Amino acid sequence: MKNEFMQKALELAKQTETDIPVGAVVVKNGEIIASAFNTKENDNNITSHAEILALCRASKILNNWRLDGCDIYVTLEPCPMCAWAIMQSRIKNIYFGSYDAKYGAFSKIKLEQYSDYKPAIYGGICEPECDEILNEFFKRIRA
Amino acid sequence: MKNEFMQKALELAKQTETDIPVGAVVVKNGEIIASAFNTKENDNNITSHAEILALCRASKILNNWRLDGCDIYVTLEPCPMCAWAIMQSRIKNIYFGSYDAKYGAFSKIKLEQYSDYKPAIYGGICEPECDEILNEFFKRIRA
Repeated sequence: MKNEFMQKALELAKQTETDIPVGAVVVKNGEIIASAFNTKENDNNITSHAEILALCRASKILNNWRLDGCDIYVTLEPCPMCAWAIMQSRIKNIYFGSYDAKYGAFSKIKLEQYSDYKPAIYGGICEPECDEILNEFFKRIRA
Repeated sequence: MKNEFMQKALELAKQTETDIPVGAVVVKNGEIIASAFNTKENDNNITSHAEILALCRASKILNNWRLDGCDIYVTLEPCPMCAWAIMQSRIKNIYFGSYDAKYGAFSKIKLEQYSDYKPAIYGGICEPECDEILNEFFKRIRA
């Protein structure tokens, strides 16, 4: 695990416009091979979460839906849609920042128990910074 | 609920090549507005399940990720990835054919309990026909 990858995910998160700021990077052999930020509202597409977009880009680059030996860094705990996609893609390690107490696929729903592929899951990476950009976003849209 | 929509989904399922035969249609006001079949292997994309592709196409047509008033018909019970996408897109009714005893998001995992949007869920529609094409596929790839 390297905090620099979460820092990159944080930079990406800050690039969202109307969307909840979430960024994700896929890492293989110590290098970022794909990255994305949440563009659900911008794309008008329910699946345009940072994680899904980053997985799809990584698969294109590797020409394989199996992302063996890859890790993902994401600023917010994945929702069940993203978590299942991540696990099915055979990602090795999942590092996330903020916990999602309501929809968190791991901390709340424990979705990993149903998957044949069980990545190692690490939450709370750079948590204060990840929490901060989310809090700022929600403060702004409430105002 | 109309069996003709599941029949259309079954026709689509039969069009997969190397992929597990699953078809899906999205219906609004009694008409099919989008449809797809599973092309995960063909696309080398973990998200190219029939349901995800059909949702994305419907969103494009309606220019909205919110599929209010839409129903989905799918030949196999959705996995957690697809189920969460379907529920978040605010689909009204989910009709599926075969039950998935291992990964079924509803019958096994009961994922709907975590969603704010709770569609009506109906399983076992045209179940024998849906089971048959899956059984044939797995028999063929085992041979």
